Parts: sequence; structure tokens; C-alpha cells
Amino acid sequence: MAIHLAMLMSKLPKLQNLSASDHSSVVSLNLFVALLCACIVIGHLLEENRWMNESITALLIGVCTGIVILLISRGKSSHLLVFSEDLFFIYLLPPIIFNAGFQVKKKQFFVNFITIVMFGAIGTLVSCSIIALGATQIFKKLDIGSMDIGDYLAIGAIFAATDSVCTLQVLNQDETPLLYSLVFGEGVVNDATSVVLFNAIQSFDLTHIDSRIALQFMGNFFYLFFASTMLGVVTGLLSAFIIKKLYFGRHSTDREVALMMLMAYLSYILAELFYLSGILTVFFCGIVMSHYTWHNVTESSRVTTKHAFATLSFVCELFIFLYVGMDALDIEKWRFVSDSPGTSVAVSSILLSLVMLGRAAFVFPLSFLSNLSKKNQSEKISFQQQVIIWWAGLMRGAVSIALAYNQFTRSGHTHLRANAIMITSTISVVLVSTVVFGLMTKPLIRLLLPHSKPTTSTTSIMSESTSPKSVIVPLLGQDSEADLSGHEVRRPASIRDLLTTPTHTVHRYWRKFDNAFMRPVFGGRGFVPFVPGSPTERNNTQWQ
Amino acid sequence: MAIHLAMLMSKLPKLQNLSASDHSSVVSLNLFVALLCACIVIGHLLEENRWMNESITALLIGVCTGIVILLISRGKSSHLLVFSEDLFFIYLLPPIIFNAGFQVKKKQFFVNFITIVMFGAIGTLVSCSIIALGATQIFKKLDIGSMDIGDYLAIGAIFAATDSVCTLQVLNQDETPLLYSLVFGEGVVNDATSVVLFNAIQSFDLTHIDSRIALQFMGNFFYLFFASTMLGVVTGLLSAFIIKKLYFGRHSTDREVALMMLMAYLSYILAELFYLSGILTVFFCGIVMSHYTWHNVTESSRVTTKHAFATLSFVCELFIFLYVGMDALDIEKWRFVSDSPGTSVAVSSILLSLVMLGRAAFVFPLSFLSNLSKKNQSEKISFQQQVIIWWAGLMRGAVSIALAYNQFTRSGHTHLRANAIMITSTISVVLVSTVVFGLMTKPLIRLLLPHSKPTTSTTSIMSESTSPKSVIVPLLGQDSEADLSGHEVRRPASIRDLLTTPTHTVHRYWRKFDNAFMRPVFGGRGFVPFVPGSPTERNNTQWQ
Repeated sequence: MAIHLAMLMSKLPKLQNLSASDHSSVVSLNLFVALLCACIVIGHLLEENRWMNESITALLIGVCTGIVILLISRGKSSHLLVFSEDLFFIYLLPPIIFNAGFQVKKKQFFVNFITIVMFGAIGTLVSCSIIALGATQIFKKLDIGSMDIGDYLAIGAIFAATDSVCTLQVLNQDETPLLYSLVFGEGVVNDATSVVLFNAIQSFDLTHIDSRIALQFMGNFFYLFFASTMLGVVTGLLSAFIIKKLYFGRHSTDREVALMMLMAYLSYILAELFYLSGILTVFFCGIVMSHYTWHNVTESSRVTTKHAFATLSFVCELFIFLYVGMDALDIEKWRFVSDSPGTSVAVSSILLSLVMLGRAAFVFPLSFLSNLSKKNQSEKISFQQQVIIWWAGLMRGAVSIALAYNQFTRSGHTHLRANAIMITSTISVVLVSTVVFGLMTKPLIRLLLPHSKPTTSTTSIMSESTSPKSVIVPLLGQDSEADLSGHEVRRPASIRDLLTTPTHTVHRYWRKFDNAFMRPVFGGRGFVPFVPGSPTERNNTQWQ
Repeated sequence: MAIHLAMLMSKLPKLQNLSASDHSSVVSLNLFVALLCACIVIGHLLEENRWMNESITALLIGVCTGIVILLISRGKSSHLLVFSEDLFFIYLLPPIIFNAGFQVKKKQFFVNFITIVMFGAIGTLVSCSIIALGATQIFKKLDIGSMDIGDYLAIGAIFAATDSVCTLQVLNQDETPLLYSLVFGEGVVNDATSVVLFNAIQSFDLTHIDSRIALQFMGNFFYLFFASTMLGVVTGLLSAFIIKKLYFGRHSTDREVALMMLMAYLSYILAELFYLSGILTVFFCGIVMSHYTWHNVTESSRVTTKHAFATLSFVCELFIFLYVGMDALDIEKWRFVSDSPGTSVAVSSILLSLVMLGRAAFVFPLSFLSNLSKKNQSEKISFQQQVIIWWAGLMRGAVSIALAYNQFTRSGHTHLRANAIMITSTISVVLVSTVVFGLMTKPLIRLLLPHSKPTTSTTSIMSESTSPKSVIVPLLGQDSEADLSGHEVRRPASIRDLLTTPTHTVHRYWRKFDNAFMRPVFGGRGFVPFVPGSPTERNNTQWQ
């Protein structure tokens, strides 16, 4: 924000006789903030509704506002809001992903780590290939203008990008923890794959792909994955170390919260600086911060960070959906398409079908492979669950739109027919998949998994609980406890047990290492003296 | 943020081979966030220091970084960070002022309301006139280029603007509540006066000022003051009403916090939309929200909002000081001045002297007037306190820089010699007044008011307290209690008592009205059932 806006050096809107453009941007800002408030209130009123969720509400409000603006300006105004990739990737996405890492159930995530990486890496490649191949075959028969092999591969990458933001809204961490961690985790890994894919498509010579390039591609992916993860972990540990060492004995809630927030953001932009995947970095930074840093701060800071990060993430999500909804009606993009609406509808439908096909082509085979490695029946992914994984990952969101803009506006999206069609089709696919698939996810889960708790709230991870413990200890804390008691049950009695539950064994060794080396240095639950001056001072003995 | 950035439509820095400028802006962002972290850590380490405070630390770190950048780029780089009025007025200032209203001791503020308005309105006019007159007389003798009457009046307005952000840092609400409320309240009213002054200077024909224009000016000021205040109050009450009505029975911390945050910001930009004083509006919105809305939300939301708003304000303050420090070394501005360093130093010294004179010319007479109206000796402003009020309001900050840019860059500050000199002089005055006067404020207060508690922390309004009550109930809550007990002591026994303590009587009638009409509708302490699901559920009976 600082740097970009600082470069504008525009006039002071407040003290000057405003120029028309300055004042209209204040009007837009007012409208936008008011709409965000409206989304929150309407989302709250629709909380009990079995179909709606907050993202769909925001998207629909955005579209309606776009229609109203179009009508008022008589079809002229198309630039009240234009989608900006910078805004999205630099300011809106990091808080959402950080909060996801901060509140994720860590044990569930790491137990399924291999499956998640398989889904995210191999799955995305499969999906991308199928979509790219399908598009190449079918689009050539349609009259949509000139596109080269790079464009087709880019289409594959664009429509292989699962929308992790939307997943957070439709799946519930408390009700379907396995599905949540699989689909959401896949979305995070998916991003790293997308980065490599995109870089590959734009930098490698794609006319002849040989084994050397494929190897280079693999190496690039692993480098990106590990470097991003390590950067996030190191930043998180650094924040824990600084707060533990410096603040001991004289804590200040505001400094602690500010430091956590700034260091989390620093991890993201450091990743951008080194051309890594900021999303992976900030996700792991969130995990490490919730495991170490969060336990080193005062009780007030814990309550504040838990809710402030969730709120920030919530507002950013609403912002994105409202933004995409309003941007969808940008008239200039549709002008090119209006003379051949049939083609546009055809392209969108084909892409949507390819997305569904591409996802089916890896969810079911990879789930089968994952089930093969698991002896315990309860840990296997049932067919019903596979269907939900397939379905919940079908939604495409702001990431797809950002990628589409990146690929198809380089030569001007309003000038080339093919580019205009691809942009409008992307928007159509995003709108349809988010609204239609999003609306049907909750009923589908209730249909396929009737034994899961009834969905009373789409955002119950964020909502209040009446048990004080669940407020004080974030969700991950419960895992650690469940895990500690789990040791008693799952302690491997023989070598065979050890082999059948490898992840649990790995986890147990990690716990030992964590308790012996990590927590004494970086702090963490039970390794930091209780800090007074907190609202829960009285009942700390109960849960500490 | 949305609108401005959205218009840029720049390339995606993350997925592209970055262009040089994109990557350098990521580098700047990294540097800036890392410096903010450094400021927090260093500020914490210097907390016990009797001279330093966080703003001076940030300012000095900013200047040092500027020097390093200049050395590395061998005197070329001047645009790592350029001061942007938009960034300052639209994004950084609102959270600071809102938090000030949210955490201000309301009783202290309203008891001194008349004095505060006198200081803010009449004082600013006096100060502006003296500075403008002095500058006109002295600058004509110096060779600094062509300036018209509008420029001189603008100089008056620029240097009459007290820096309320800096006041928050050097004065302590708990130790010197009267001084804090007077100087800070003055700074807020000061803004409204600055807006009117600036508009008047730029729109009225200043060659012949008659009584009609003076009346128009007065009318304009009162309209601005009341309209801004009412807008803030109405928005605050609306937020209280919405949360009380809609959220009853099924509270969600994140929605509540998001709604409070967005509605506070909405009040600010609504004021901008109607050409009112956003600072006044958001300040009163903060006061109303802390009085009504804050009591309608869950306990978690209370802890979160109290600390999240304080943290946001803290980070914004650091940001501003770091920003001003780094901007001070923008080489282009200094190029014009370098051939005549004597003139620049002379201009800065003259301006600094005029600022001191202008402030002395209203602080002491107005304090005398204010003391005349008060019979109670303890309520009078002592001479020592007057000196501190004079001294603490001498600091000039980002507001002055923003105004100077607004006035002196319209015809290009690098082209006109007079404009370049005025910009560099403003920066010099801001740096010198903030660092030198800021450094000496704490020792001065200890010298003049030795009976006040020792200053252990400059940010103790933000820091933890060991009493749970002061964490649960924000500072204003304590006032209400002190006030309730105060009724017993000060209950007017006769008409004479009633006349000698008019503000207390007004306050008592307000309390009655508040309890009878306002709180039943908008909620507030004791008028909303306790909301479960909060960490302090157990000890609520103690303080509710």
C-alpha cells in the first residue's frame, strides 16, 4: 500500500476543492464500505439458511450493485471497480491464508500431509493437462480467434487453480475435519504448483518438451516447496524467539500483536522478494506462530490475535467476493462477446465441463492410492467423501481471475477477440462455479454424510462457542490435547503396529523432539510462565 | 486502497518475470515492514528511557535509513518513499483518531469541552494570524522568491496545525489526564479549523476581507463542527443499534468486530464525501462506540476491539513517523536549497520561533479566561500546566507536511525556488520540533509537575495492567464509575453550587437522559444482558 500509493502523489481530497475524479473515488470507497457492512448484516441474517453462505451473498450483492451502477450510468460506467491483481495478491490474500494456517487443526493437516501434497502437486498437473488438452482439441473447432500453445497451457493452469478461499467458506473444519484439511491443504499446495506451471509456461520453450525440461520442472517445484515452507517456519520461529526473549516480564499487548501481524506479513513479502510461493510461506508461518508465538504472549494478546486475524480474514474474503461480483459486469469486456453470445456460452460450458473432468481424473485415482497405504478403515477416504472432495474443489475464484488477467491482458483484452472471450469465460466459470456449486455443497454434504453434525453455520470456526476453553485455546490447542490422549490409545505395541500407523509414529517422535529442543527455546504451551494481566487470569489453572 | 490500486491494473508481481520497477517496490515494502518491526523492538527496549519515545525512535530510524539509502545509491535515489497525502489522510490518520476517541476519558473530555473548543478554534486562528503576519513581514526581507498573500496565509494554516498524533505519544492520559484531554482535544478541533482556513484561503478573494466574509467564515466553521460531530454520533449510534437488535442471542465475534471497524471507517469517508472534517467525525464516532456499541458485544469482542484498535493505531503512528523520517531525505527537494543553506536555516528558525510565539499568544490568555470561569481551585489550569500545554502543542507533524505539499507542489515543488524552500523548511521544522521538543517533554513534565506519577512508559494507555478490571472495562468505564461516586460529593446543595459547577450539573442531566432514553434503545453498560462465551464469564458479576 505504502509504496504504490506513495508513488501517486495525488492531491489531498480533504482540504481541496475536489476534482471530479478524486471525489468519485471517495464515492466508490463509500459505496464499497457500505456494501461490506450490508454483506455482514445480510450474511448474519441468512446464517441459518441451508443454501447460502457469506461468499455467495457477497458475490450476489456485488453483481446486483454492478447492475444498478450500469443502469444508473446507462451502460457507460464500466470502471467503478476494475480487478487488480496487485490488490488481490499483495493485500487481500495474505491475511486469509495466514489465518487459515493460524487456525488450522495442525494434527489433522500433518497426518494427511502426503495425501495433501499428492493432491496438490500431481492432481494439479493432471487437471492442468486434461484442461489444456481438452481446450486445444475443442477450441480449435470453434471460431474464437488466434491462440498459441502457451495460451492453451495457461488455460490449463488458470482452471486448475482451486479456490482455497471458497473452500474455507463451504467446508467446516469442526464438522468435516478430514475433508477440510484435504481440500484446503490441497488448495495451498496447488498454489505452489500454479506458480511453477505459470513460470514454466512463460519462460520455457514449450514447442519441444523433453525429459531434461521435465526434470528441471520437478526440481523447480521441490525447491519452491521446501524454500517457501522453510522461510515461513523460520519467520514464525523468529517471531516466537523475539517475543519470548525480549518481552519476558514486561509484556505489552499492542506491541506483541503488532509484531505478530507485521512478521506474518513480512514472511509473505519476503517470499515474493525471493520469487517463492508467498501463500505456502505465510500458511506455514501461521502454523508455527500458533504453535509457539501464540503461547508466549499475554492472555489479552491471545484473544485479540485469535479474533483479529479471523476478522481480518473474514473482511478480506467478503472484499474479494464483492469485488469479483462487481468486476464481473465491467462492460468493456463484454462488448466483444456480445456479437457472438453463443460462442461465449459454449466456451464457458466447455471449460466448466473440463474443470469437472480434470478434477475427477485425479481425485478418485489418488484417493484410491491413498486408501491403499492405510490399513485402518476409519482413516480411508470413503466414496462419499471422495465425491465431496471432488465437488468442493470445483469452485474457481479470484486466483483464476487474476491468472486470466495476467495471461490475457498483456496484449490488451479489449483488442483481441480471443483474449476478450477468455476473460469473460473465466468470469462466467467463476460466477457459475461459486454460486451454483457453492449453493449445492452444503445440501450435498448433508445428503452424502448424514451422520455429520447438522450445519448450523458456515462460519462456525469463527463464531462463538459457549465453552470458555474453546475460546481461550484455539482449535489447534484441542488437537494437541486429543493427540496427547491419543498416545495412550495408539501406542504401538509391536513393529507391525508401528508400520501400520507410520504417521502417528512420526508425530510422536516430533512431539518428543518438540518438547526436548524446540519448546524450551521458542516457547509454547506449558513452556512459558503464565503472563498476568489477562482477563482469564482466574481460570488459567483449569486449562494450562 | 481498493479504488486507487484497482485503477492501476498492473502486472502480477508474483507469477511473472518481474519488471525492475515491480520488484523494487517489493524490496521497498520488505524494507519498510522490516523497519516497522525494528521500531517496535527498539521502542520496547528503550521503554524505560526517560527521554525517548516511540515516535522519535521511528523518526530517527527513518532518517538513518534514508541516509543509508542515499549512500548506497550514491545520492541518486530520492524516491524510495515519497510522502503521499492520500495515504496519510485516507488510510493512516483515521485509525489513530478513532482509537483516540475510543480510548479517551470521556468525562475529562466533556468537562473541559468549552476550553477545548476555545483552544482549538480561537487559538488556531490567533496562531495562524501571528505566523502569517510574521512570515509576511520577515520573509519579504529574505531572498526566497515570489510568494503571494495566499501563500503566506497558507503558511499560517500549515504551522498552526498541532500534531495530535505526537501529543498522544508524549502526554500520558493516566498521569496527566487534564493536560492530555486539553492538548489532544485541541488538536482534534484544530483540524476542523484548518479545513475551514484552508478552504477559505483557497476559495475566498483574500485581497479585501470584510465583515461579510468574516461572518461567512464563522458560519462555515460552526456548520462544519456540528455537522461533523453529528455524523460521527449518528454513525456510532447506528452501529450500536444494529449490533443490539440483530445480533442479540447469537453473537459472532468476527462479525461484530468487522462491523465496528467498517462502520467507524465509513463515518470517516462519509465525512470526506460531504466535505466535512473526517477527523472530528471519526473521533466522535469512537466516543459513541465506546459508550454504547462496545457494551453490546461479546466479551471476546470487547478484548479484541480494545487491543486491535490500539494496535492498529500504534502501527499507523509508527508508519507515519518512519515515513516522514525517510521522506525528509528526498534529495530532489534539497537540491534547490543546497546553493543557499543559510536562507533555508534562517527560514526554518524563523518559522520555529513564530510557531512558539503564536502558541504562547493564545495558550496563556485563553487559560486565564478559562480559569476565570472556574471557582474551584483544583479545576484551574496552573501556570506550570499552561507551560506544558504550550510546549506539548509545539510539535508539528505529518498534517503540516501534508498541508505544505498541498499548497506548495501545485506548481511543482522542484521548479519554483520559494516552493522548494517552503517544503524543506516545513520538513526541518517538523523534524526539529518532534525530536527536540519531543525529547524534552517528558523531563519537562517531571520538572514542572513533580507530584505526578513517574513516567514508566510512554504508551501505558496501551500497555497491560495487572488489574483485570482495567483490562475488561476500558478507561472510559472507570470514568463513569468515578463520576457516579462523584455525584455524592458534588451534589449541588444550593443554586450557588449549581452555578459554580455547571459542567457537572450538565453532566448529571445527561446521565439521567442517557439512562432514561439512550441506553434502553442503543444499549450500554448495564443495559444489555451479559453475553456468554467469553473468557471472563466467570468473574462478570464482579464488575458488571
